[in-house]
Amino acid sequence: MSDAPKSHPRYLSLATRDKIVNGIKKGITSEHGLIAHGRGEALDYLLGEKTHDFAKNAIEASAAMLLSAKKPVISVNGNAAALVPKEIIKLSKIIPAKIEVNIFHTSKKREVKIQRHLLRNGAKEVLLPKKPLIEGIAHNRRFCNPEGINKADVVFVPLEDGDRCEALRKMGRKVITVDLNPMSRTAKKANITIVDNITRVMPLLIDSIYKLRKLRKDQLEKIIKNYNNKKILEQALKSVKK
Amino acid sequence: MSDAPKSHPRYLSLATRDKIVNGIKKGITSEHGLIAHGRGEALDYLLGEKTHDFAKNAIEASAAMLLSAKKPVISVNGNAAALVPKEIIKLSKIIPAKIEVNIFHTSKKREVKIQRHLLRNGAKEVLLPKKPLIEGIAHNRRFCNPEGINKADVVFVPLEDGDRCEALRKMGRKVITVDLNPMSRTAKKANITIVDNITRVMPLLIDSIYKLRKLRKDQLEKIIKNYNNKKILEQALKSVKK
Repeated sequence: MSDAPKSHPRYLSLATRDKIVNGIKKGITSEHGLIAHGRGEALDYLLGEKTHDFAKNAIEASAAMLLSAKKPVISVNGNAAALVPKEIIKLSKIIPAKIEVNIFHTSKKREVKIQRHLLRNGAKEVLLPKKPLIEGIAHNRRFCNPEGINKADVVFVPLEDGDRCEALRKMGRKVITVDLNPMSRTAKKANITIVDNITRVMPLLIDSIYKLRKLRKDQLEKIIKNYNNKKILEQALKSVKK
Repeated sequence: MSDAPKSHPRYLSLATRDKIVNGIKKGITSEHGLIAHGRGEALDYLLGEKTHDFAKNAIEASAAMLLSAKKPVISVNGNAAALVPKEIIKLSKIIPAKIEVNIFHTSKKREVKIQRHLLRNGAKEVLLPKKPLIEGIAHNRRFCNPEGINKADVVFVPLEDGDRCEALRKMGRKVITVDLNPMSRTAKKANITIVDNITRVMPLLIDSIYKLRKLRKDQLEKIIKNYNNKKILEQALKSVKK
């Protein structure tokens, strides 16, 4: 744990950070994941560390898209597993959606550790990548589960990288992502981009699922149709610059 | 090392990152240091990953201040040691200045590893923190070396945190820092803030020392006097927003 005292002006940020550093100790977060977390911290700082209206709109559209999906899948990497394991599992139960582990720096060992971490936190089933089914990416990140992402119509991939987001879109999947950088390729390629901190997003997304699941299919479709990701990203970029 | 292929659009950034991840493996970088590196990456991205004029001005003033100092000290943390060990040593030789290890998350073991890493890279002497001589900070970061930072008039502390920068200023030290965040407390509290990536700064600072060491004392003083850190930070902030 951090040795910074409560009097340190950045105590809260340092304490949150400990969660992800602990992920390293558990073997579920990669070192590169820590750096990615730091990039997020800087952008979150520029956003004033709060959930803006553009993110709330994206969260509502995400809830509608996840509820309308026939085979929704939640793709989980090391950072997501370290930061919001309980929330991922709750989300998967109330949609309902399958959970699949998918990490940037491939490691069978780490995949299994993330799987166990989620099972220990209450998940019933956690799929692992099995076959190189994702086309158009050059490296060993093609793997996914034949019954998970491979068959999905909507994939929720928080904290994803641009490469695979693009590949999934080309394979006809709808992609929802959480990314603090509105200029990233992931942000631009996804169908819905929630520009916000994942620790703030997950409880709001769960709330939104509870609210919208009372709606009819045509009402959900209307929400999705009215959502414009390009506009949302423009608003997010403006906010970063302010 | 990273398993990202050369075809990956962020290959260069990922490869640089490996240097700091290797720092973890060598035991010289902390996990929190990786996150800090990530924050820097995001801000560097917003700056267009280049050295702007405001940074060049700050580098020139830093060279003048280091050359004018009676007892200059270079304070080295885990990230600086992992990213630019050779450059730190070269700088210390041509000023000349002492080198002292000083890390945010105190660990005797890591301090000694950083010391050895620098000695292996060619440093003649590397001081370690010994006594709690830095006043006004609440935690275990008060330690410094009685013959190093304690007696220094100018301290070059790249990648520092705001807490200790402030404390050093209160103790009457002149502080030069390298910080990609022009809004940070460190940036605001330092006498000179170089808003740029440390891997680009160090070669330029070394060049600048070579150039300016031909100057007379009054010429160096003029450069320092004409430098305005507040203005420089305003220019840097404008550049981040663009």
